Amino acid sequence: MIRLSVRTPSREALVNVTRLLNEALSEMGLAEGVLHVYSPHTTAGVVIQEGADPAVAEDLMLRLAELAPRNHPGYRHLEGNSDAHIKTALFGNAVTVPVVGGRLALGTWQQVFLAEFDGPRTRELWLTPLVR
Amino acid sequence: MIRLSVRTPSREALVNVTRLLNEALSEMGLAEGVLHVYSPHTTAGVVIQEGADPAVAEDLMLRLAELAPRNHPGYRHLEGNSDAHIKTALFGNAVTVPVVGGRLALGTWQQVFLAEFDGPRTRELWLTPLVR
Amino acid sequence: MIRLSVRTPSREALVNVTRLLNEALSEMGLAEGVLHVYSPHTTAGVVIQEGADPAVAEDLMLRLAELAPRNHPGYRHLEGNSDAHIKTALFGNAVTVPVVGGRLALGTWQQVFLAEFDGPRTRELWLTPLVR
Repeated sequence: MIRLSVRTPSREALVNVTRLLNEALSEMGLAEGVLHVYSPHTTAGVVIQEGADPAVAEDLMLRLAELAPRNHPGYRHLEGNSDAHIKTALFGNAVTVPVVGGRLALGTWQQVFLAEFDGPRTRELWLTPLVR
Repeated sequence: MIRLSVRTPSREALVNVTRLLNEALSEMGLAEGVLHVYSPHTTAGVVIQEGADPAVAEDLMLRLAELAPRNHPGYRHLEGNSDAHIKTALFGNAVTVPVVGGRLALGTWQQVFLAEFDGPRTRELWLTPLVR
Repeated sequence: MIRLSVRTPSREALVNVTRLLNEALSEMGLAEGVLHVYSPHTTAGVVIQEGADPAVAEDLMLRLAELAPRNHPGYRHLEGNSDAHIKTALFGNAVTVPVVGGRLALGTWQQVFLAEFDGPRTRELWLTPLVR
């Protein structure tokens, strides 16, 4: 398992980690299979989405903030970041991406993002190559 | 990696691909492990849900359309399909299904669906067999 | 594939299965790789979230009940559990966790939960070890 470190810029952000992952892949030497990308956090997840138009990420985070509001009269967790936990649960802690010829096989518009919901922080991504 | 082509019938649809996947599995020759089913799109995902009563899929798509409305005063992406991106992020781009005896080991009521949110289109699913 | 049985206590519950999974891992003998944890149900999923403060799980289930309300004038499925299907689709049917030194490599605050949305029932989790 390889551990990557990712600095996030603000409380909420989608940080494009695609290049980082491809660089790590070359070190791992996986030619064909699937890359397991895991966030060991409970207030930051991972997601695959469009990277071309940054407005897509903005619209996604805008709506997500409404689906899991920061303040809610029913929240009982005292750290004030229940919204971040909920968003992480909705996105999930891992993505799995096909690997072909030693590189991520992403669709034309796809990029991999670390989804920060309670930053800014230094986060980790844990990578495991899975063989066919 | 095997690439399947799937024609979707309308803007939003859950297309049952279970039989397609089992057919592809026989070609791949994976006896025991996990099948990785990947959507290389940003406005179509994959989901495992009930296949017996079609009303389940309808209720799911009904509520999802409310969770990610087609029109929103805050959306900035100009293609008018931000809802489709959001829905895809909520469902995710991949499912992983156990394989036993060369076939998908699904629960009694489970079927695998390609989740189209911006069709009709011809979509792809990319399959990778993962070994134990 | 190993099948675990999990008894859930109420209609909705997050049942911590982390210890069960680590015990099963020792039997499987996977030293390094990824554990695939699969729910074969359509009204119960799996999720990785904080285990330290139980209020996090409560806030998560509270908001999820609003995102997928139990009653909705548009629901057509007659069993009255459309909310459970929707919640399961949002969480997903599988989690994948890195394995290092024969144990789950979870983040400091992470635990694995079976997410029951239509209990109480006896549920199953199907485990497959995936190798690097």
